[in-house]
Amino acid sequence: MALDHAKPGEVIDVRPLGEALADARTTTLIKAERLEVLRLVLPAGKEIATHTAPGPITVHCLEGRVAFTVLGEERELGAGRMLHLGAGEPHSLRGIEDASLLVTLVLVK
Amino acid sequence: MALDHAKPGEVIDVRPLGEALADARTTTLIKAERLEVLRLVLPAGKEIATHTAPGPITVHCLEGRVAFTVLGEERELGAGRMLHLGAGEPHSLRGIEDASLLVTLVLVK
Repeated sequence: MALDHAKPGEVIDVRPLGEALADARTTTLIKAERLEVLRLVLPAGKEIATHTAPGPITVHCLEGRVAFTVLGEERELGAGRMLHLGAGEPHSLRGIEDASLLVTLVLVK
Repeated sequence: MALDHAKPGEVIDVRPLGEALADARTTTLIKAERLEVLRLVLPAGKEIATHTAPGPITVHCLEGRVAFTVLGEERELGAGRMLHLGAGEPHSLRGIEDASLLVTLVLVK
């Protein structure tokens, strides 16, 4: 719901969830003009099939570990690691450990 | 230099710098189409005067504490906290403790 999103200048908490991660769900934190930020919760073993985003994105692992496949290569993303992708780059994810990731999407058009 | 920036899909380290923070300098980590990410190093007591960015931004404190003034209000940003601003919103910063911040800028035009 729009009312749940952070307003400009509002301080939000993106620390690791720790024990609360087990019961957490993916949430959209910021939904603004040209910009969207979500905390993606990816449990161990869960896969997100290959997909694309219309604009560039960054993916910042806050806790846990995921396997991130892009450009024909699987890379591991652990806590405190980040990568970025250009617009329309197909990618997929798989949780190695329970993980949460901060995903920043540049919205185009 | 362009060669220092992360390529799409390349995993980069954005963990707190810890003791290395004292000697660290601001660095641009990602410079891509429509997107730029930098690690801003702000020592305690240092100020960044009021300025604007042409597009929306997010500011994610990785370590330390800063005072962030925007929309007529000073807010404190500690480790694991984030805020976002719309395009052209004037803001200023001051280090309360030595800090590093991940700043994501949406580039427009």
